[in-house]
Amino acid sequence: MTGRKSFGSDNHAGVHPAVLRSIVEANSGDAVAYGADERTGRVTASLREAFRADGGVFLVLNGSGANVLGLSVLLRRHEAVICAESAHINTDECGAPERLLGTKLITVPTTDGKLTPELIAERLAGRGDEHFAQPGVVAITQSTELGTCYTLAELRKLADFCQASDLRVFLDGARLANAAAYLDCPLAELAECVDALSFGATKNGAMGAEALLVMRPGPAADVPYLRKQQTQLTSKMRFVAAQFGALLHDDLWRANAARANAMARRLADGADGVDGVEIVHPVQANAVFARLRPRHIAALQREWTFHVWDERESVVRWMTAFDTSEADVDAFLDSIRATADQ
Amino acid sequence: MTGRKSFGSDNHAGVHPAVLRSIVEANSGDAVAYGADERTGRVTASLREAFRADGGVFLVLNGSGANVLGLSVLLRRHEAVICAESAHINTDECGAPERLLGTKLITVPTTDGKLTPELIAERLAGRGDEHFAQPGVVAITQSTELGTCYTLAELRKLADFCQASDLRVFLDGARLANAAAYLDCPLAELAECVDALSFGATKNGAMGAEALLVMRPGPAADVPYLRKQQTQLTSKMRFVAAQFGALLHDDLWRANAARANAMARRLADGADGVDGVEIVHPVQANAVFARLRPRHIAALQREWTFHVWDERESVVRWMTAFDTSEADVDAFLDSIRATADQ
Amino acid sequence: MTGRKSFGSDNHAGVHPAVLRSIVEANSGDAVAYGADERTGRVTASLREAFRADGGVFLVLNGSGANVLGLSVLLRRHEAVICAESAHINTDECGAPERLLGTKLITVPTTDGKLTPELIAERLAGRGDEHFAQPGVVAITQSTELGTCYTLAELRKLADFCQASDLRVFLDGARLANAAAYLDCPLAELAECVDALSFGATKNGAMGAEALLVMRPGPAADVPYLRKQQTQLTSKMRFVAAQFGALLHDDLWRANAARANAMARRLADGADGVDGVEIVHPVQANAVFARLRPRHIAALQREWTFHVWDERESVVRWMTAFDTSEADVDAFLDSIRATADQ
Amino acid sequence: MTGRKSFGSDNHAGVHPAVLRSIVEANSGDAVAYGADERTGRVTASLREAFRADGGVFLVLNGSGANVLGLSVLLRRHEAVICAESAHINTDECGAPERLLGTKLITVPTTDGKLTPELIAERLAGRGDEHFAQPGVVAITQSTELGTCYTLAELRKLADFCQASDLRVFLDGARLANAAAYLDCPLAELAECVDALSFGATKNGAMGAEALLVMRPGPAADVPYLRKQQTQLTSKMRFVAAQFGALLHDDLWRANAARANAMARRLADGADGVDGVEIVHPVQANAVFARLRPRHIAALQREWTFHVWDERESVVRWMTAFDTSEADVDAFLDSIRATADQ
Repeated sequence: MTGRKSFGSDNHAGVHPAVLRSIVEANSGDAVAYGADERTGRVTASLREAFRADGGVFLVLNGSGANVLGLSVLLRRHEAVICAESAHINTDECGAPERLLGTKLITVPTTDGKLTPELIAERLAGRGDEHFAQPGVVAITQSTELGTCYTLAELRKLADFCQASDLRVFLDGARLANAAAYLDCPLAELAECVDALSFGATKNGAMGAEALLVMRPGPAADVPYLRKQQTQLTSKMRFVAAQFGALLHDDLWRANAARANAMARRLADGADGVDGVEIVHPVQANAVFARLRPRHIAALQREWTFHVWDERESVVRWMTAFDTSEADVDAFLDSIRATADQ
Repeated sequence: MTGRKSFGSDNHAGVHPAVLRSIVEANSGDAVAYGADERTGRVTASLREAFRADGGVFLVLNGSGANVLGLSVLLRRHEAVICAESAHINTDECGAPERLLGTKLITVPTTDGKLTPELIAERLAGRGDEHFAQPGVVAITQSTELGTCYTLAELRKLADFCQASDLRVFLDGARLANAAAYLDCPLAELAECVDALSFGATKNGAMGAEALLVMRPGPAADVPYLRKQQTQLTSKMRFVAAQFGALLHDDLWRANAARANAMARRLADGADGVDGVEIVHPVQANAVFARLRPRHIAALQREWTFHVWDERESVVRWMTAFDTSEADVDAFLDSIRATADQ
Repeated sequence: MTGRKSFGSDNHAGVHPAVLRSIVEANSGDAVAYGADERTGRVTASLREAFRADGGVFLVLNGSGANVLGLSVLLRRHEAVICAESAHINTDECGAPERLLGTKLITVPTTDGKLTPELIAERLAGRGDEHFAQPGVVAITQSTELGTCYTLAELRKLADFCQASDLRVFLDGARLANAAAYLDCPLAELAECVDALSFGATKNGAMGAEALLVMRPGPAADVPYLRKQQTQLTSKMRFVAAQFGALLHDDLWRANAARANAMARRLADGADGVDGVEIVHPVQANAVFARLRPRHIAALQREWTFHVWDERESVVRWMTAFDTSEADVDAFLDSIRATADQ
Repeated sequence: MTGRKSFGSDNHAGVHPAVLRSIVEANSGDAVAYGADERTGRVTASLREAFRADGGVFLVLNGSGANVLGLSVLLRRHEAVICAESAHINTDECGAPERLLGTKLITVPTTDGKLTPELIAERLAGRGDEHFAQPGVVAITQSTELGTCYTLAELRKLADFCQASDLRVFLDGARLANAAAYLDCPLAELAECVDALSFGATKNGAMGAEALLVMRPGPAADVPYLRKQQTQLTSKMRFVAAQFGALLHDDLWRANAARANAMARRLADGADGVDGVEIVHPVQANAVFARLRPRHIAALQREWTFHVWDERESVVRWMTAFDTSEADVDAFLDSIRATADQ
C-alpha cells in the first residue's frame, strides 16, 4: 500500500463509522449466543422483509462461506453447478465448492461475466446420462466479477429458463448492493428471480458480515445445520447483526453502493480519453477494467495500489469503495494522465 | 436471558472494552486484505513468539473453524481422529469434522474429559489392517469441556506416547487461556507438547477471533490454502488481528482468564456447602459442573441463565466469563441457597 | 490357510458352480455396457419383483459399495447415521461412510448387534439443535455381524418407530439370504420394513455381486449418478447380472443360505457340549461366536482358519459358507474336542 | 445392439476365453480374502516387475475406481488436478474425482487429447496464491480418449517438466495396452515417466479388472486404506487376479491390444477414401474418429452400433476390441461405402 487511497479492492477499505458505532452499541451486557439474541432477530426479520425471503435469513462470516452455504442448500448430493468461467466461486476460492461440497463446476466462457439461457443450454446435453456430471444449480454473480450487471429483464429470462429446465438459481451477491444501486430497484426485485442469494455487507462498509437469503421454506430447513457444519456459525452473533443493522438503517447500504458506483463512473469517464487507455467492460458497478500499455501500468503501480487482471492482455482492474472520494479519483486520474506517455 | 449475568456460556459475554478500542483504532485508512497488512503481521509475529510456533500462526473466525483447520493440517487423507467422547469436535459441531474432512472420530469415554496413553492405546488395535479406521491424530481439549485441565506432566506423557506411536497431537484451545492461568505457565510450555493447537480469543473477551498455531514448518505449508478452502479466511483481517492485539497487550488474555477462573472457584466454593448441591468435576478453569435436585434446577432457571448438561444425571453447567464479577457470583449463590429447599 | 475348509469367513469360499456356468454362458457376443443389456434388464426385473422394490434395483460390486450407496440415497446432505457399534459400516470399512459421504456415525452399544426403538430414541435428544449431529438414517444389518436375526415383528416395530420419527431405514443385507432362510420368509417381507437395502450375493456363492434395492421411486431417481460417482458402476455389467441370475434360478440363493445356516447350527450344537466352550450369541445365521480358553484357541488355529473376534474376551468367530459340508463341520468338531484340554 | 459386431466401445466385447478359463481354474477350494491369497500375490508380483513399480500394485474393480484411487495417492489434501478437457476423469465419470476427493479439475483444451509442458505451464500462474486452486497432479491418458498416443519422448519431456515444477504425474491407463502395442515398448518404459498409473484389463479382454501401480514406496503406504475407503477392495480377489494372470501369460494383453489397434488401422485406412468421410485424429490405438455427413451417420446407425462423438461437428467414434475380426471391419467398411451417398 502506498498511503494513497487503494483502488485494489473494495475490501481494502475500512469500516463505515455508522457500522462501527452499531458494533460498539451492541456491546452492552450479555446476549444469548449463536443468533438467538434479539438484535439478530430484528435484523434478520428486516432482511427477510426487504428480500421477501420466505425461507429465512442466515448471517455468515464471509463471502466464500455464503457462496458454499448457498450452493449446498440448493444442490442435490450428486449435482454439479453451472457458472461463468470468471465466477468468484471458480477463480477465487481455491476450489472451496469442490472441496467442501464435492460438486463439479461446469464453467462457461463469457465476454461480460454474465450467463444467458443459450450459454446454459449448451451445458445440458448430458443430462440423464449417468456418465456425465448433472447440473442442478446455475450460479450467477450480481454485480459480476467484471463490474457488469444483469438487467432485471435478463434475470427474469434466466430465471424462467432455469425453472423450466429444473435448475435452481443461486446468486452470489457479494456486491449486490452495487447492482441494486445501478439498477435503482428494490432488493426484492433482484431476489425474486433466484432460489437463494447472498447479500454482501463486507465490501459495502461492514467489518465482516454476509447474509444468505433463502427464498422458499423447503430448502431452508437444513440451513442451520449446514451453516454449523461449514463452520460459518459465529457465537457472538449480535456483532454481525449489528453491522447489518447499521447498513439497513435509512438504506445506508444503498448510499454506500451508489457512492462507490459513482466514483467508478467518474474514474472511467476520466480515464477513457487518456491516450492508450481503453475501458474494456461496461462500468455498471464499482469496478473499472481498463487496457493500458504495460509500461503505463508499471509507472502507475509505483504510486497506486491496484491489480493487474490479465497480464497477457495488459488489462487492469480499478475498484472503488464506499469511502472513495472525488478527490481520490481525481488524484488518481491525474496520475493516469501524467504517466500515460510511459 | 433474564437480565442478570448469564452463567450459560462464556460466549454470552460481550467484548472487552480494550478489544473494542483496538478494533476502532484499526479502522484508519485502507489496508491490504486477507492478512497481508502490517497489524496482522505484528500480531501473528507476537503469537508465534509466545507459542514458539515455528510453523506459523493463522487467524480464523471461530472455534469450529480452528478445530477443523487444525485437524486437516495434521491428518493424512485416510486417517481418523481419536478424541474424548465429550470433545467439542464430537458433541458440539454438528459433525463438522466428518463433513468437511471425511474423517472418522474414534471416541473414548472418560470420566474427566481427559485422554491418557492407556485410553489411546486401546484404540490402536486395528492399526495396519485396511478394514479398520486408522488413527493418525489425537485431539485433546485444554481446558476440557468438563472444566478440567491437563497438568504439564500429563501433557508430556501424552505427547511422548503419541510421538512414539506415530500419532500427531492437536489441541483444541478454545479455552487455553483458562488452562494457562490455572497452571500458571507460559503458553509455549503448553504448546510444546502438541503439533498444532488453537488459541481461542472469543470466549476470552474478543468479538470473534481464534488463532491456529502450527508448531513445525512442514505441515504448516498447506495451511493458507486449507484455510481459504474451509472458508475461514477473512478479507478485513486487520480487525481480527486487532482483537488479538488487545488481548496480548500486557497479557490481558491472562488477566481475563484468571478472573473467569477465580469466579468459577468462588462459585464452586460457595455452592459446595449448599444442601443437595454436589460439585461433580474438579473446578480448574471457568466451568462448574454441579448435581442439583431437578426441582432446584427448575427454580434457579426461572431467574438465571445456565445449561442443564445432563438431564438424566441432573447435572448443570455454570460458566463464568472475563466480566463475571464477585457480586454476580454472590447474587447467584444467594439464589442457589434460597432455592435449595425446592 | 491350512488346506482344510476355512471357518474364517464366508468369503473364503469360491464361487458356486452354477454361478460360474452362468458367467460363462453370458460370454457370448457383444452386449451394451453399463447395465443396458438384456440380461441385466431381466435380472434386475426379477429382483425388483422379489423385493417389491418400486424404486429400482442397482447392481454394484461389493458390500461396502452397496452400503455407502444405500446410505447416500437416504441421507440429506447434513445428516448423520445411527447404527450399532458392531455394524460393519462402523467397524470394517475403514471409515468409508465418513470419508465418502461426510456423514457421522452415531453408534449404539448392543448386546446382540440389534437396534431397538428404545436404543434409537436415546440418540435423538439433540434433534433440532444445530450444534448436534442430526440423525436421518438408521442402519441395521440382517443377519447381524453377530450372527443374529431381527424377527419380522422386531423389524416392523423398528420401522414404525423410525417412520414416526422421520428416520429412514437402511438395511445392510450382505447376509440377507441367511436371515431369509432362518426366518423362512419371502424377501419382500424383509424389505417392506425398510427404505433401501442391499442384497448380498458374494458371501452366498457369487464371485463379486451385490444389489441395492430402493423401495420407493422418489429417492431412487439419483441412484444412477451416485453409483457412478462412487465408482460402483461396472462396464461389463452382464457378468454381474449373470451371477444374480444363477442365484435367483430355483431360489439357489435360499438353498445356499440354508446350507450355511444348518452347518453353523450343527457346529454350535456340537461345540456347545465341549468342555470350556461357550456359545455366546444365538446362532441364527451362518456364524458361531464361542468363548474358548486362550490355549484352546491357539491349538485349534494351528490346524484351522478362523478369526479371534475379541482377544480380551477370548471369543472366536466361526463362519460357515454355502459349500461347508457336514464332513467339514464334523472334522472341525473333532479337532475342537481333541484340543479342548489345552 | 444390432447383432453385428459393435464398434460402440471396447467394453461391448465379452471376455477373452483364456481369461474365463483362468477364472474357472481359480475356483478351487478356499482362499484367503481381500488379496492375501497366493494367486493375487503372484500376479501382483508379476505386474510389479513388468512396470518396475517399487511402490506396489493394487488391484481394483473398474477404471473410475483406479483413477480416483490413483489421484488420491498423489494429491495433497488441498490440491487440484490439471487434465485435458477431453480426459475421462473430466467428461465421463459424473464428477467422481470432485465428489470423492474434493479436488478441482483444471481443464485444458487440446486438439489431440494430449497435454504438453506449455499447456500445463499456462495453468500454473496462480501458484502460491491462496485464492487460486493449487495444481498438484497432472493427469494424462495413454492412449488418449481421442485414440492418440504420447510418444516416449513426449512423455519424458512432460515428466521432466512436471518434476521440475513440483507436479506429480498420474497416467490413466485404461487403454495402456493399446499404447504399449502402438509404441512397441515395454510397460516399464511407459511407467518410468509417471508417479502412479492404472493398467486397464477390462477393455483388453478381462471381465472387470484394473491395476493401480505406484512407482515409489512413499506414497504407496496409504493405498490399502484409500482403496478400502473408496470401496474398491473386493473380497474374492483371486478372481480379479486370475484375469490379470491370463492376460500376462505370454503377453496375451499385448496380442489383444495389437489386434484391436490393427483393426482400427484397417478401418481407418478403408474409410479414409470413402466420399464424405474424413479421419479427424491420428489413429494410433483402437479408436477411429471420423467426420461423416449427418445423413450418412444416420444410415450407418440403422445397422451398426457406434457413438456420435460430437453432434455439432458431425464426428463419430468407432472403437475396435481384442475380438474384432478383419471380417467385422470389412463388413462395416462395406456398409460405410454403401451408405456414403446418403
